[in-house]
Amino acid sequence: MCVLLTDMYLKDIQTGVCAVEGEPVVEKESAATALVDGNNLLGPVVGNFCMNLAIRKAKEVGIGWVVAHGSNHFGIAGYYSMQALKENMIGMSFTNTSPLVVPTRGKERTLGTNPLSVAAPAEHGDSFVLDTATSAVALGKVELNERRGDPIPDGWGCDPEGHVTTDPKSVLTGGGLVPIGGSEATGGYKGYGLGMMVEVFCGILAGAQYSKYVRTWKVTDRVANLGQCFVAINPENFAPGFNERMSDLLSIQRDQDPAEPGSPVLAPGDPERLNMKKCEEIGGIPYHINVVKYINDYVKKIGISQLLPCDNVVSV
Amino acid sequence: MCVLLTDMYLKDIQTGVCAVEGEPVVEKESAATALVDGNNLLGPVVGNFCMNLAIRKAKEVGIGWVVAHGSNHFGIAGYYSMQALKENMIGMSFTNTSPLVVPTRGKERTLGTNPLSVAAPAEHGDSFVLDTATSAVALGKVELNERRGDPIPDGWGCDPEGHVTTDPKSVLTGGGLVPIGGSEATGGYKGYGLGMMVEVFCGILAGAQYSKYVRTWKVTDRVANLGQCFVAINPENFAPGFNERMSDLLSIQRDQDPAEPGSPVLAPGDPERLNMKKCEEIGGIPYHINVVKYINDYVKKIGISQLLPCDNVVSV
Repeated sequence: MCVLLTDMYLKDIQTGVCAVEGEPVVEKESAATALVDGNNLLGPVVGNFCMNLAIRKAKEVGIGWVVAHGSNHFGIAGYYSMQALKENMIGMSFTNTSPLVVPTRGKERTLGTNPLSVAAPAEHGDSFVLDTATSAVALGKVELNERRGDPIPDGWGCDPEGHVTTDPKSVLTGGGLVPIGGSEATGGYKGYGLGMMVEVFCGILAGAQYSKYVRTWKVTDRVANLGQCFVAINPENFAPGFNERMSDLLSIQRDQDPAEPGSPVLAPGDPERLNMKKCEEIGGIPYHINVVKYINDYVKKIGISQLLPCDNVVSV
Repeated sequence: MCVLLTDMYLKDIQTGVCAVEGEPVVEKESAATALVDGNNLLGPVVGNFCMNLAIRKAKEVGIGWVVAHGSNHFGIAGYYSMQALKENMIGMSFTNTSPLVVPTRGKERTLGTNPLSVAAPAEHGDSFVLDTATSAVALGKVELNERRGDPIPDGWGCDPEGHVTTDPKSVLTGGGLVPIGGSEATGGYKGYGLGMMVEVFCGILAGAQYSKYVRTWKVTDRVANLGQCFVAINPENFAPGFNERMSDLLSIQRDQDPAEPGSPVLAPGDPERLNMKKCEEIGGIPYHINVVKYINDYVKKIGISQLLPCDNVVSV
């Protein structure tokens, strides 16, 4: 789950918009596929159920392709794809999300940031982990610039008339994010196509809400009914030596001379890996004091214990 | 096949670098997966074999995921994904290609333009067809600007030192293309991750050549041994009403007010559809006179009949 979305998850639970009892149910099934009704449970409950099912199928027939309707915000896409790594399999996860992205040439928010994640195991615990929204950036990045009073780079968002803008306020009030690639001239239609692809695998294949019908971001006035897709692929069903080739592919990228000395070429997943290493070194995950206050405000409301005061203050 | 690559295909055949006799062979198989040895046959021979196999599997168990090694340039990725539309299925195809793309922060060409294609059927013959390289643009676009003496937009390619450049010559001589998204600041690492994903599904999963080991573009000095991946997914294994939702998803995009009047929002596949309609209206595919000369030069060499003179000259 995302710490910064705790209020959204809690509001969904407290208002009864989201179910807290029950189990996801398989509605239709083959050796390699399944359609799951998430029964409006929390996203991670549905996600774990579906990813485990996909992995079981991949053990039997080499691939499991599982889609769910009736789901909720599932947190981090990479969490599910990475479950497959434990079984030495390729994992994928996709979800549709609230409409925030304006398609190339348009001016209406008709797609979510629709993330996709793919993870593949290499040798000695190393792996490839791609986890990316199909929008140029996340909404949070635009909000951050707006709070700081900074303009945004060209190619992050558009104004209510559909024109790419550097004004974060204009993106947040009536405009929207643009797809990966930015404007049409810089190939934004590629990201638009990828966002549509995620919607096909999620809302359309699952029979969930889709596109502009998904409820507004952070407005928990009605059931979300998100569509999600979970895939596991067993390399044992294909050519021997998968992990060795994966390690080599990662090394080819990482070991090349970087354009800027001191700024090495990273493999997808490396930034998060570096951050986890740092957290292990300092003995925990550092949170900004405002985030700690935010969490403590919420846990107070629901009567559970607050985060303890911590004297391990880290400057970042 | 690509008309403009006729010389490459012919050179591969005439020099014996590519096989002209034989059939692709299934090496390993489950109800839902297959590993195919393309036996160094022409890409379309391998591609048709694999896509047909994927569709047969999807009819049985809802999905077919087929990868091939020992393949060659297969032409247009969308040709294979679109085969699935005839069976009212989702189709996907992926191929690795000769190294032309420099990863984010790097300065070496260690990835191909690695295209991916996804096609999904809507109602009344309508469909979603995404067919995109994972590089910002195709090499041909840079070559065109170089021939015209025009600079290229920021975010298409980099110089031999890995810095994004507007000089097409520098991209073509020692530099390279950059991934979808352009530089690191504009999200090029997303395109880099997608290019890696395609390589995982192709060279790595199939045990073919991969990354920088794939032979140099248009240098037919040795066997290509490309890796390719073909997928069919049967919507019947998921929620009823797939085609209706697909049509609605396409309409939501196409029917919105465009940012520029007269420049309507298109769905992926629409530009090609519009072009096909135009060709039907004028009674054929218009080729530039230089392309006709190029083809006739080649067919003369191998002793087959040239393209007939045509009085239907179209100005475009």
